[in-house]
Amino acid sequence: MGQLVKKTHIIIIGAGFGGIQAAKLLANTAAQITIIDKHNYHLFQPLLYQVATAGLSEKDIACPIRTIFRDQKNIEFHMDEVIDIDLADNRVITITGHQISFDYLVVATGSTNNFFGMESLAKNALCVKTLGQSVATRDHIIKMFELAAHEPDPEIRHSLLTFVVVGGGPTGVECAGALSELIHFVLAKEYHNLNFKEVRIMLVEASDALLPVMPLDLQEATVEILIRKHIEVRLLVQVSGFDGNTLLLKGGEVIPTHTVIWAAGVCATKLLDNLKQEQDRAHRVIVNEYLHIQNKAKVFIIGDAAHFEQDNSPLPMVAPVAIQQAGVVAQNIISLMNGRPLQKFVYRPVGTMATIGRNAAVVNIGKFKSQGFIAWIIWSLMHILRLIHFQNRIVVFMKWIWEYLTYDRVEHVINQD
Amino acid sequence: MGQLVKKTHIIIIGAGFGGIQAAKLLANTAAQITIIDKHNYHLFQPLLYQVATAGLSEKDIACPIRTIFRDQKNIEFHMDEVIDIDLADNRVITITGHQISFDYLVVATGSTNNFFGMESLAKNALCVKTLGQSVATRDHIIKMFELAAHEPDPEIRHSLLTFVVVGGGPTGVECAGALSELIHFVLAKEYHNLNFKEVRIMLVEASDALLPVMPLDLQEATVEILIRKHIEVRLLVQVSGFDGNTLLLKGGEVIPTHTVIWAAGVCATKLLDNLKQEQDRAHRVIVNEYLHIQNKAKVFIIGDAAHFEQDNSPLPMVAPVAIQQAGVVAQNIISLMNGRPLQKFVYRPVGTMATIGRNAAVVNIGKFKSQGFIAWIIWSLMHILRLIHFQNRIVVFMKWIWEYLTYDRVEHVINQD
Repeated sequence: MGQLVKKTHIIIIGAGFGGIQAAKLLANTAAQITIIDKHNYHLFQPLLYQVATAGLSEKDIACPIRTIFRDQKNIEFHMDEVIDIDLADNRVITITGHQISFDYLVVATGSTNNFFGMESLAKNALCVKTLGQSVATRDHIIKMFELAAHEPDPEIRHSLLTFVVVGGGPTGVECAGALSELIHFVLAKEYHNLNFKEVRIMLVEASDALLPVMPLDLQEATVEILIRKHIEVRLLVQVSGFDGNTLLLKGGEVIPTHTVIWAAGVCATKLLDNLKQEQDRAHRVIVNEYLHIQNKAKVFIIGDAAHFEQDNSPLPMVAPVAIQQAGVVAQNIISLMNGRPLQKFVYRPVGTMATIGRNAAVVNIGKFKSQGFIAWIIWSLMHILRLIHFQNRIVVFMKWIWEYLTYDRVEHVINQD
Repeated sequence: MGQLVKKTHIIIIGAGFGGIQAAKLLANTAAQITIIDKHNYHLFQPLLYQVATAGLSEKDIACPIRTIFRDQKNIEFHMDEVIDIDLADNRVITITGHQISFDYLVVATGSTNNFFGMESLAKNALCVKTLGQSVATRDHIIKMFELAAHEPDPEIRHSLLTFVVVGGGPTGVECAGALSELIHFVLAKEYHNLNFKEVRIMLVEASDALLPVMPLDLQEATVEILIRKHIEVRLLVQVSGFDGNTLLLKGGEVIPTHTVIWAAGVCATKLLDNLKQEQDRAHRVIVNEYLHIQNKAKVFIIGDAAHFEQDNSPLPMVAPVAIQQAGVVAQNIISLMNGRPLQKFVYRPVGTMATIGRNAAVVNIGKFKSQGFIAWIIWSLMHILRLIHFQNRIVVFMKWIWEYLTYDRVEHVINQD
């Protein structure tokens, strides 16, 4: 009693869903917590595609990390990029040269785009994985219309008005649907001299199905809804290269386009390679039942960075997994601090959903399946409730109501100076 | 009757207050109108300083030009930059190589920052004259706090926390006031390890007064309000150089800082120099009583691009001048099309106002003078009413109410990827 004890220091790398949840659950302990992220905001990633398609502005889905933890004096934020983790000395090293020691470490570094080694796509395709990428995608789409509006050559105009989304998972499906609505409901009213029948939107998927985790009838409903939105759905088609002007498909087909949006795959961030632990094909580190890496009881890995097997298959790279893992990790760190036994992680699936624009979504929660308007209402409410910052929720909700009533979008300002 | 007549073509260069107003007033004529601007949005410039100080997000004060004229089929937008005007052949030449002929031309190209030949300031100072500049200013300010939060050296920390606004006109005063509120009301709650007494905000003005167009008592009130907001007001001080780390003042004083926000002067855009007409010191073209340039009855110049003398002094470079001039120019173009006599321009002053943050503004309309809370309410209502797009108005209004009630700001996300 009365003795000066050095506070336990917990470092959390990454302020995504997993990192933020871990910090929240550890906030009321006696530990000092440092969150390190190269961005100063937490991002509501599931709605990034709406930024890319001008439905929301970047600020609606980003909230400063310091604002979230304003009242937690034991949580400090450090805007920096971790480039190495020293497992022998229990410290992290940042790109600005800071070396920070920890008692416990939570690695929640998330994932990045995976182009499966195709350099030309990595260089020229647009992405919707970060805020900057999504803004650049939006700016690019609007620029194509500005160029097409004054392009007399029909061939060049067609290529300007051809938009290809690669990847038939939730991001690709949502992106294609939202893009079609932006073009046919909003831009069609504003480009008086363009013939919108010249617009071509394609969704290209390498496997034989869209939304592979969904039941078959919802997969089929998804294809139907997309076709109704004037989107060409191409299954069993692989892309092989894109130079910025021409997309090459395996088999030889060539598509003149300047816009390829990549939603076909992600992998864990590079930092993990430095740990020299066993990794899977997506570069995720294999973790044990407590979310440790082997023999390092003080280092936990969660979310997209972790490969966790359950029922003989790895868990998907989605927010609910990261959030639930953060819960067990926070509990286990508290247990370690208090000399109590650790808890094993078990994932409880929360269902999957995707929206395909106005009035249309597919939702599958346990045995409950829904498609169309009711599914869209469920999707909207779930996403509104999950938005982290109260004001964001109101603004996003108002924008959705506004768009719903007016078929209008006001976010298609090209940011570039 | 029934004969095919080529439509009269009016080109408007610039989609600021003047250009947009001219297009609106000409929309119901039989003419074809083309608006050319290098950005695809109209910008509510008087609130740019709030973007720079994280009070509003960029989309709140920018509205796509095509959205404004969605229902006007005779108004076309061309996103491009005019690099020359051919007065002999009545056409404009753009940077992308387009040559577009006009029957009437409205030059509403606005103004840009004027550094009075000081290269080092042009290169290193931050500005609040465009959307891109204002976003960069905001990102820079927040970055200074992120760096200071982990900077052990007190001298370096002090320089990171020193912010200098140059220019005592409305932009400089509003910027300094809003910056103080961002720092002391918002950031002070979020950087738990910083001592906010180390923060230094200076407002530097070369003349002996702030807001020189205001009556003397309101000028004095302005200084008082700024001092209450912990801002050092330095009158009769000129800056001479800034290398990004050190600001030099004339007289030899040296201020270690990384943040100099330039609000000390603007001049008309470069394009006007190509007209080879008589220009004033701010590069504005001297126009006659009909807002023509000499001997060119089909070319009108308005707003910040025009030097118009009234009561022996040129009109100020403010939005109300541009808007009123657009009214007379639209009327005169309609008169020329119909063979009617032209109308002379007479400016009717609408008063001046500036806000200095929460609850504090100065307002002078004719004989009416006000300062403090009532002035702030007047300022707020005037700006809300003038925001061009209905949804923007609601969103901005909600954000102000929110900030007012909570002393909160949610826009301090650093945009950079």
